Amino acid sequence: MTHSDDKCIFCLIVKETIPSLKVYETEHSLAFLDINPVSDGHTLVIPKYHAVTITDLPDEYLADIGPVVKKIAIATGATAYNVLQNNGKLAFQHVDHVHFHVIPKTNDKDGLVLDVNTSWPQQKAKKEDLEVILEKMKARIA
Amino acid sequence: MTHSDDKCIFCLIVKETIPSLKVYETEHSLAFLDINPVSDGHTLVIPKYHAVTITDLPDEYLADIGPVVKKIAIATGATAYNVLQNNGKLAFQHVDHVHFHVIPKTNDKDGLVLDVNTSWPQQKAKKEDLEVILEKMKARIA
Ligand SMILES: [Zn+2]
Ligand SMILES: [Zn+2]
Repeated sequence: MTHSDDKCIFCLIVKETIPSLKVYETEHSLAFLDINPVSDGHTLVIPKYHAVTITDLPDEYLADIGPVVKKIAIATGATAYNVLQNNGKLAFQHVDHVHFHVIPKTNDKDGLVLDVNTSWPQQKAKKEDLEVILEKMKARIA
Repeated sequence: MTHSDDKCIFCLIVKETIPSLKVYETEHSLAFLDINPVSDGHTLVIPKYHAVTITDLPDEYLADIGPVVKKIAIATGATAYNVLQNNGKLAFQHVDHVHFHVIPKTNDKDGLVLDVNTSWPQQKAKKEDLEVILEKMKARIA
């Protein structure tokens, strides 16, 4: 690992100081079963690099992890599944090392359960408001 | 586009037959604002290739899209945000072309709202059950 944190549980899993149920790995990524799954096959895919959120993660790790997430989706055998990656405590991140959840869904009750009314507070936006947001966003990456 | 579907709204957005509020693009990926956002800056990142789920998407597109998702996270200026990619109707997929939601979260009510009790039906799994699942998964990608 080119960058790790001795107090991070996921870094310790990468180093095999802490054991895990490893599904697959590459030079840059590791996939292992979540021990508190929300459905059978619930897997975590992490970079072998300590970054709290994706904005801290070098692009080479992000480029590697996408195909690994796909491989895990195939491994689960699921036809319906969610890929969820949370950044920041407010956004439900509980371990401060980037991780992608791959969560199979076989029925309404297991896996990730989104309630249309409460989980997804969608609103019709005005085009002029969206255009203001768009310009701010483009400026941040220009 | 090396592979597209004339009836797919996202393919038509890639081809600019349907306009979009484009934030950023690469040769393989396009990012544009969701017009029914769940929070300000809610963006969709899609491959410029028609695939219904990630298991149908060539690895080169998955390798490209990760760094683009990061770029969009930076563009939003958010410190907390969720990346969500749904596969299959049962898993809340509404447009049949792979898309990654980048969803800023500024408070408990906006963005993706997960209820700990209902959205995340976590259970402590027995190690022997996990090991059975693990072997099945590894066999599928061996
Ligand atoms: Zn770490
Ligand atoms: Zn399409």
